[in-house]
Amino acid sequence: MTKTVIWGGTFVTMDEERPVVHNGAMVFEDDTITYIGDKQETLKEQADEIIDGHNHCYLPGLVNTHGHAAMSLLRGYADDLNLQVWLEQKMWPMEGQFTEEDVRNGALLSIVEMIRSGTTSFVDMYDKMEIVAAAVEGSGMRGVLARGVIGFPAEQQATKLQDAKAFAKDWNGAANGRITTMMSPHSPYTCPPDYIEKFVQAAHDLDLPIHTHMSETRKEVDLNVELYGARPVEHLRKLGVFSRPCLVAHGVHLTDEEIAVLAEYRVNVSHNPGSNLKLASGIARVIDLHRAGVKVSLGTDSSASNNNLDMFEEIRLAALLQKGISGDPTAIPAMQALRMGTIIGAESIWLNNVGRLAVGFKADFIGIDIDQPHFYPHTDLVSHLVYSAAGQDVVDVIVDGQFLMRKRELLTLDMERIQYDAQRSFNRLNGA
Amino acid sequence: MTKTVIWGGTFVTMDEERPVVHNGAMVFEDDTITYIGDKQETLKEQADEIIDGHNHCYLPGLVNTHGHAAMSLLRGYADDLNLQVWLEQKMWPMEGQFTEEDVRNGALLSIVEMIRSGTTSFVDMYDKMEIVAAAVEGSGMRGVLARGVIGFPAEQQATKLQDAKAFAKDWNGAANGRITTMMSPHSPYTCPPDYIEKFVQAAHDLDLPIHTHMSETRKEVDLNVELYGARPVEHLRKLGVFSRPCLVAHGVHLTDEEIAVLAEYRVNVSHNPGSNLKLASGIARVIDLHRAGVKVSLGTDSSASNNNLDMFEEIRLAALLQKGISGDPTAIPAMQALRMGTIIGAESIWLNNVGRLAVGFKADFIGIDIDQPHFYPHTDLVSHLVYSAAGQDVVDVIVDGQFLMRKRELLTLDMERIQYDAQRSFNRLNGA
Repeated sequence: MTKTVIWGGTFVTMDEERPVVHNGAMVFEDDTITYIGDKQETLKEQADEIIDGHNHCYLPGLVNTHGHAAMSLLRGYADDLNLQVWLEQKMWPMEGQFTEEDVRNGALLSIVEMIRSGTTSFVDMYDKMEIVAAAVEGSGMRGVLARGVIGFPAEQQATKLQDAKAFAKDWNGAANGRITTMMSPHSPYTCPPDYIEKFVQAAHDLDLPIHTHMSETRKEVDLNVELYGARPVEHLRKLGVFSRPCLVAHGVHLTDEEIAVLAEYRVNVSHNPGSNLKLASGIARVIDLHRAGVKVSLGTDSSASNNNLDMFEEIRLAALLQKGISGDPTAIPAMQALRMGTIIGAESIWLNNVGRLAVGFKADFIGIDIDQPHFYPHTDLVSHLVYSAAGQDVVDVIVDGQFLMRKRELLTLDMERIQYDAQRSFNRLNGA
Repeated sequence: MTKTVIWGGTFVTMDEERPVVHNGAMVFEDDTITYIGDKQETLKEQADEIIDGHNHCYLPGLVNTHGHAAMSLLRGYADDLNLQVWLEQKMWPMEGQFTEEDVRNGALLSIVEMIRSGTTSFVDMYDKMEIVAAAVEGSGMRGVLARGVIGFPAEQQATKLQDAKAFAKDWNGAANGRITTMMSPHSPYTCPPDYIEKFVQAAHDLDLPIHTHMSETRKEVDLNVELYGARPVEHLRKLGVFSRPCLVAHGVHLTDEEIAVLAEYRVNVSHNPGSNLKLASGIARVIDLHRAGVKVSLGTDSSASNNNLDMFEEIRLAALLQKGISGDPTAIPAMQALRMGTIIGAESIWLNNVGRLAVGFKADFIGIDIDQPHFYPHTDLVSHLVYSAAGQDVVDVIVDGQFLMRKRELLTLDMERIQYDAQRSFNRLNGA
């Protein structure tokens, strides 16, 4: 057993009883937090290491509940375009060429970026997921992974479903439980209804949750009505998708009735404010979703539509956008936004002992250097984290009790090599 | 004369003919750029220093066209509140206590943060401006400064106007021209019409521009109509404000007719997207302003309503918000957003040889470390700067040919001391 004590510093716990512990201490033993609270000299007994937390703020690692890691290979490749042009002329032709090595290079690039900006758990939905899972395993991060499946061409449906099931089964619980899996039909507009039903059945058989895109654009909602006579929420409900624990990404275009259905079926929504703005999809009704009791977490979506994986930016956008749109400056206060990026994120992807600095929870947390001008004066640190911080302020990242980054130095991955490989992949794909 | 050569690296020039120079070179001699373009060995002759630009991206320093530097003392002091509560119960009582030392400490805190995040020129509108000007002079930054005046109580009007005129006259052109000044009635709702007219007269007498807040909130527009029978644009036009070169901050609530008037009178608008969202004031009609030919630059407003001074965030917000609101992903493309934060910003505050990497322009520029995961692959660097960068990526800051920060080390200011002093000021103000 390894016992580590963090002595001093500010702890933003996400615990409702004591959300912030000033000048406190935290102990973790192996992968679990065993103490959080005021400093007590006895905590130091038999410690393997005592870390000085002075001028640092510690909080649960950030949880990114929607993305496609491999697509960071396409960061900056195509911006400021109409969605159809972007997808059909830019993204799909490039992604169609992705080899296993490209997926590995893209996924590792995303993982390095996520660690450096304080994300400790992330959802990934993509193809060639064994590659992504192996990258997650090696990196030390926590991943909730799914083989995202598009139902075209029809003759590949059976193989793809089989592939998705095999991946989900093989990797669920891997890497000391750091990897869990989901079943993931890509979306109602890319999967025929009977194919979605097969994913629902598989999710039941394997006792896994479902993750899918839903109601990202108005056009997609209209198309659903045209094709199936129902808006996406009703469509997916009828297909049984909500009979499983379910996480939907985006949920931008929702009616009051649809929000009520999501609440009734405890469907979790991954809000992706940056991507939704950049692709001009709109702004999700986060205030109304919260009010209805829907768990709303945060995701970056891929770097091809964000274009970074800095969850601090999504946390801030979630708070700012809802105020600006509603005209109510008290909407989504700082603590709520930070909860969306931590504990609510973890709960939304069924990580029930992650996302909080509390006894018995996983030692998944990050340290921020608050001895910088944009964190002064030291007033309300929760406000500073939400309205002033950026990923680059993260200095320490711990997952499952292991340091993945320490004093900004990566301990599990070779950043230089990963950057080099990503560039090489891109150059080949781009015909350079 | 000192001659410095930057050899290699990418130069984002903001020049329309050649917006990006890949693997190029730049030379500056004393405070002026004397070469930008392809590498040529002869450039190295008689150079005092040759800097390796490999893995760096250089661009003009960012220009922040609206703020109140001293207010960073109140960062995180009051968030997520209704505007009137925030102003009347939180901001004003604290600001009423600000001593000269507090203004110095707050201004220096902002200046350190701005340098570290790549801003080289900024507008400041506040009280006790000699203190701010002295801080700017000592820091090496470029400042366009104005004593912002509220017309209440009436018996102080004459003294305040005198103070504003004296400041504007004394400091215009100071610090090798790094400081210029403006006349600044705070806003139509805090200055009676006849008092605004006196500022217009003073601006004519001193041949200076005018800077004022305008149409930030709907409530303020309604009040203007109620009190003066005109919306703010027409009101200020009638008072002669637009007979001077003029920069208005915010301009959130504007009609088509008002936008046409701003274009006709060549009034420049400082768009403050972060502050406008946070205070729930709304989202300015940037696309329509651009279309009408109005110069729209970017400002952070103060750290009390932002809550940082990172201009990369404002640049990104400007691009993202307009897409999200308009439903058009091609709105405000990356280059346009970056222009708003550089060359358009400089032009908006009448700095006619700043904001561009071009021969004859001031050596006011910044260097970004692009050897980081969120800048890979190296595809479109303008996209990366707008959609992926943060202030913390800035490593070098040069103003008027002088390094203010080099490899992230501040050369003109003592950051630790400034942070300590700011905390001390806040503690005293907060009664701690």
